[in-house]
Amino acid sequence: MRLLRLGAPGAERPAVRAGDGRVYDLQPLTADIDRAFLEGDGIARTRAALDAGGLPPLDDPGDGSGDRVGAPLAGITKIVCIGLNYSDHAAETGATIPAEPVVFLKTPDTVVGPYDEVLIPRGSTKTDWEVELGVVIGRTARYLEPDDDPLSYVAGYVVSHDVSEREFQIERGGTWDKGKNCETFNPLGPYLVPASEVPDPQALVIRLWVNGDPKQDSHTKNMIFPVAELVRYLSRFMVLRPGDVINTGTPAGVALGAPDPKPFLRAGDVVELEIEGLGRQRQVFAQA
Amino acid sequence: MRLLRLGAPGAERPAVRAGDGRVYDLQPLTADIDRAFLEGDGIARTRAALDAGGLPPLDDPGDGSGDRVGAPLAGITKIVCIGLNYSDHAAETGATIPAEPVVFLKTPDTVVGPYDEVLIPRGSTKTDWEVELGVVIGRTARYLEPDDDPLSYVAGYVVSHDVSEREFQIERGGTWDKGKNCETFNPLGPYLVPASEVPDPQALVIRLWVNGDPKQDSHTKNMIFPVAELVRYLSRFMVLRPGDVINTGTPAGVALGAPDPKPFLRAGDVVELEIEGLGRQRQVFAQA
Repeated sequence: MRLLRLGAPGAERPAVRAGDGRVYDLQPLTADIDRAFLEGDGIARTRAALDAGGLPPLDDPGDGSGDRVGAPLAGITKIVCIGLNYSDHAAETGATIPAEPVVFLKTPDTVVGPYDEVLIPRGSTKTDWEVELGVVIGRTARYLEPDDDPLSYVAGYVVSHDVSEREFQIERGGTWDKGKNCETFNPLGPYLVPASEVPDPQALVIRLWVNGDPKQDSHTKNMIFPVAELVRYLSRFMVLRPGDVINTGTPAGVALGAPDPKPFLRAGDVVELEIEGLGRQRQVFAQA
Repeated sequence: MRLLRLGAPGAERPAVRAGDGRVYDLQPLTADIDRAFLEGDGIARTRAALDAGGLPPLDDPGDGSGDRVGAPLAGITKIVCIGLNYSDHAAETGATIPAEPVVFLKTPDTVVGPYDEVLIPRGSTKTDWEVELGVVIGRTARYLEPDDDPLSYVAGYVVSHDVSEREFQIERGGTWDKGKNCETFNPLGPYLVPASEVPDPQALVIRLWVNGDPKQDSHTKNMIFPVAELVRYLSRFMVLRPGDVINTGTPAGVALGAPDPKPFLRAGDVVELEIEGLGRQRQVFAQA
């Protein structure tokens, strides 16, 4: 099953896509897919309700051809991002392989739906793409010990687009956050896929296209720090709470890593991205 | 008048301290002091209700001797922080004066009340203090133009403690965020003071003591980038929304800037901080 949210921005309703491809209304079970839902064992309750036939089917394919598809998670508490987590991407940007995870942040108000328009900031000439595996935390993780299983703190997985402005990120002084938090810079979804349906988060093909041309084509096995290690590591520096998202880094193939003239995004460009089993995003870029 | 929130963590009730020093219950007017309150002209409505004698007085001095004082703002959407914004602080840390604002982020779940315990992270040996002027945004600021008045987007001001772990921030690879987002690392308050009562945010004495010894003693006139310039600048890189907080940087006098052995914080240390007209914080540090 796959959790999703349908409707206009700010007015999305929770839904679930069952194994048979049909989409069911989740409103009888929860007001939204958010921290309270995750804390209240919402994923298990959704599965039970589906199994019992207790959810009304929706006359919507849940693919954006009907109602708009929003991000599959509401009220996100924080988005922790990992930089340079694929060795081929570190190499293409001229960075050395990090000895420990590189951490930066996106603010939750950068999140939009998987098919929403993405805005190129005013004054930007270096807007870039980054497909990433997003990890959604399911229960509070704080100073995990060696015998804790970090993956047991994960509620599920999601396709995340860590849109980045490279001049703002790298050439304007200070930390990367300045180029990572522009309006609409984190398309998320279409689905929140429960962790139980992703037996190995390091076994997923991860790909991205710009205007139909393949740009990124990799595999989550190529992460330098796998998901379990990231959850354990981050829990030493901050409290991970239900509804927090970890963007786990992008593989090679971004515009920044291409030969000059680098193919940064322009208004009208179409970016599609996909992770095996988690669904596909498609965004048209526009000028802010 | 000064807005505040009283009660246990997560169960705070809104209140207001009037010019006569008495504290009044704000619950007849609003459920909380948050984004909806700011968007709904809550500050003006509070003033009108006080003037009309329409708020019930509370039998609590609002100084922590009665109910706990929480952070004066709930549901904070993001905390944008400015680094190296006082030239004396840049000099003491060996950094050059930045050509444009240095931006990093704290996550809203690091916020605690002004008198709450602050936790020294496990494994930390370099926990440091930073008193800062916090700016609370009152209406959405997006790509401000030269003829926009940035201060008209400010709802008010607050004392903010940007607690920092220097090893995590500087020596562990990547961006500063790793040392800025530990649990309890952003005491905020006690008051949200409306902008109308702070005619010039660059005219405030800003001070901090550790165990009674003065450590930071400066003035907001010494900011490299004043509040108005920060609001205008940030609005080019991200959308500032009602309830967002900007931590505007700290003056000289932090432990990192002291001669060796640097006096980083230990369990049992008491930090007090104060900004002219905005109130005073006091925290006892403890081991996480």
